[in-house]
Amino acid sequence: MVDVNSTTPIHQVVIVGGGFGGLYAAQSLGRAPVQVTLIDKRNFHLFQPLLYQVATGTLSPADIASPLRGVLSKNKNTKVLLEEAVDIDPEQQKLKLLGQEIRYDTLIVATGVSHHYFGNDHWEDKAPGLKTVEDALEMRRRIFMAFEAAEKETDPQKRQAWLTFAIAGGGPTGVELAGAIAELAHNTLKEDFRNIDTTEAKILLLEGMDRILPPYPPELSAKAEKSLHELGVSVQTNSLVTNITEDAVTVRRKEGEEIIPTRTLLWAAGVKASGMGEILAQRTGVERDRAGRVIVEADLSVPGYPNIFAIGDLAHFAHQDGKPLPGVAPVAMQQGEYVAKVIQNRFKQKEYPPFHYVDFGSLAVIGRHAAVVDLGFIQFSGFIAWLFWVFVHIYFLIEFDNKLIVMIQWGWNYFTRKRGARLITGEKGKMLLEIKGGGDYHLPEAEKETLEV
Amino acid sequence: MVDVNSTTPIHQVVIVGGGFGGLYAAQSLGRAPVQVTLIDKRNFHLFQPLLYQVATGTLSPADIASPLRGVLSKNKNTKVLLEEAVDIDPEQQKLKLLGQEIRYDTLIVATGVSHHYFGNDHWEDKAPGLKTVEDALEMRRRIFMAFEAAEKETDPQKRQAWLTFAIAGGGPTGVELAGAIAELAHNTLKEDFRNIDTTEAKILLLEGMDRILPPYPPELSAKAEKSLHELGVSVQTNSLVTNITEDAVTVRRKEGEEIIPTRTLLWAAGVKASGMGEILAQRTGVERDRAGRVIVEADLSVPGYPNIFAIGDLAHFAHQDGKPLPGVAPVAMQQGEYVAKVIQNRFKQKEYPPFHYVDFGSLAVIGRHAAVVDLGFIQFSGFIAWLFWVFVHIYFLIEFDNKLIVMIQWGWNYFTRKRGARLITGEKGKMLLEIKGGGDYHLPEAEKETLEV
Repeated sequence: MVDVNSTTPIHQVVIVGGGFGGLYAAQSLGRAPVQVTLIDKRNFHLFQPLLYQVATGTLSPADIASPLRGVLSKNKNTKVLLEEAVDIDPEQQKLKLLGQEIRYDTLIVATGVSHHYFGNDHWEDKAPGLKTVEDALEMRRRIFMAFEAAEKETDPQKRQAWLTFAIAGGGPTGVELAGAIAELAHNTLKEDFRNIDTTEAKILLLEGMDRILPPYPPELSAKAEKSLHELGVSVQTNSLVTNITEDAVTVRRKEGEEIIPTRTLLWAAGVKASGMGEILAQRTGVERDRAGRVIVEADLSVPGYPNIFAIGDLAHFAHQDGKPLPGVAPVAMQQGEYVAKVIQNRFKQKEYPPFHYVDFGSLAVIGRHAAVVDLGFIQFSGFIAWLFWVFVHIYFLIEFDNKLIVMIQWGWNYFTRKRGARLITGEKGKMLLEIKGGGDYHLPEAEKETLEV
Repeated sequence: MVDVNSTTPIHQVVIVGGGFGGLYAAQSLGRAPVQVTLIDKRNFHLFQPLLYQVATGTLSPADIASPLRGVLSKNKNTKVLLEEAVDIDPEQQKLKLLGQEIRYDTLIVATGVSHHYFGNDHWEDKAPGLKTVEDALEMRRRIFMAFEAAEKETDPQKRQAWLTFAIAGGGPTGVELAGAIAELAHNTLKEDFRNIDTTEAKILLLEGMDRILPPYPPELSAKAEKSLHELGVSVQTNSLVTNITEDAVTVRRKEGEEIIPTRTLLWAAGVKASGMGEILAQRTGVERDRAGRVIVEADLSVPGYPNIFAIGDLAHFAHQDGKPLPGVAPVAMQQGEYVAKVIQNRFKQKEYPPFHYVDFGSLAVIGRHAAVVDLGFIQFSGFIAWLFWVFVHIYFLIEFDNKLIVMIQWGWNYFTRKRGARLITGEKGKMLLEIKGGGDYHLPEAEKETLEV
């Protein structure tokens, strides 16, 4: 255990990653007798559970992002470093960053996960995932650009491909994306186009398992499916994506393969551990699971290295009931707080009980006023569940940054059905050239001469 | 004049550009017996007067952008086309777009202006201007990245270069940018860093003329300069930018040239007419002024082509007092409305009097609670001017899209001095590599070993 007294240098805690795990660890150490350095590639914490609302044009990135320096500015023992970790030397207790090297006494690795295309990394360009602000803006660009391209396309088949939105993966992110796109097509954009009827858009939710939201109780999966149907989403279970091209997705079912023409496929089907997982494994010999997550001890440390912790989505913790904990924000938050307590107890030479996750339940939102909630002792869905979902998300969102704006924006959207953030942005000029190259949307000669009213 | 009756095809009005001029023209024609096609490269109207607040981290792009389709959805005679105009055939009355060609009976060109580097186009990379959402996000990235780089830099001279922000051009945009950056350095970010004191940042406003805000009365220029000094901005008049490199700007004064080390130079010094100005000149022979603006007739039409109008920043209109009208939003709005009336009067075979600009005055904001206002009959500055500025901007901003959020966000920022939108975003990974390449910010060996508290 670490021995601390006034003559030794101050204990250095280095945290890699400013997500829920890293940030909660840093905040819990804010008044501890240690020097904390929080390292992140980005200068903000991202409230990922609401990222799909950026992707579908309801919120702006800044609405769900909190500048890390601002969040931690009052913790005088804490430094924020805009850097990227590239290697670890556990024997020397050093972390190699892109631009420097720093020493640690305790290291907390909380670098999360990235998309996983199950060996088909070349799908990434065709089917973007949803992990970063840039991912969300790219999804937003594709979704709204597809409606624009459909408006210009005169070939009915090609037009239908632009108006077909396929979402791979029926977990919470896929369900939320599908619901939000259905609302766009059926409500928000209904009056905005002249050549297309946006309510004819097809929104397909493709799930490889036999039901959506597989970790939830079957009754809630059924209720979510029913709500999605009412919004106009075609939920297709037992449907595995086996190929993706620029203008189609191939789906394998029991009956055989189907090729569905679509210009917009969004990926919500899988994640794998970030690169730090592999580096940890190489340098410490820690075992990893199939998704690359680091299999941690009961106190979340890496076997053989009590001063290295892995927490959040990066960690595989299965000491509770044999099943690894899910990669959700509450697990990361609790693990961040737990590790902070372990570190502080070591100074007092006190043991701390193994990590125990308190499951407050799961929830997913389906469109404008429906959600499903599973609190373990009670399950409910519909409008009350939606209100509950809003309340929980606002509660955690405002914790860091008083994002009152988001609540007001939601209220506003709810009453007006507007989506003020449906901007197509990106590299200059890229937008138009892309659909020009992608689809042949030239108007026929007749229409060129007299545009119909 | 155009003859309209039930057997002839409906009159086609094509508007290029969805800025203030084009959008006001489209809205004013919303109930006219014409078919309107509004063409823009982007799917949103941008409230450019507030773009500097995106660049300095107060607002998000969506807060000051209104989707064009949403704004015009109720005008059933109006189509929005996401396209880019590339050529005009005035004899055939055709407009060539990137992906198609359309015919017009009346054409309104309102494509505005872009940055002008006075023959030094290679400066653009080093000193970005502020015209598009992408420009603003790039400025935002550079401003906040400069503080991050300074935090890491240990060489005092290099650190000071990161903490020096130079703004070229003392017009309203330059004044507003300088004021906002000064507030960032002196208030918002004050507690956020550990190695630097952000209040030591130098903010230089470089103006070639003998006073800032040259079009305003001299007393207001003096008041603006005083307010900027109080905010910590160094206002340098008679200071012409003559060279820009990656880490310095050369300024020519009466006393001679000075090379000022800075990593952040923002360009607010000049604009030139967009490419459509040149195309109009080539195809119609219309004369242009030094800034490339099209010199229009008293009814805003192009000489010899009564069915082609040029309005807004693109137009040079000097029929009022010999001086061309300034490139500001109110001119464009009034010209858009005027042209819509001219077109409708032509159907009634009625002449319409020449365009007359009603000048309601000018205003510019300086930081959190000061502004200067010149209404012609009265000039005032300070807090009352700031409130007036807020009121006017909100009034016009909510016209299209009920951007109530912006008002609330402002109120929030005003009371908390927070800036929630200070995200560094952009191409993946670009951010860190850039400052790595740009400046040597490696920590010295000693500091690597024991990071100080």
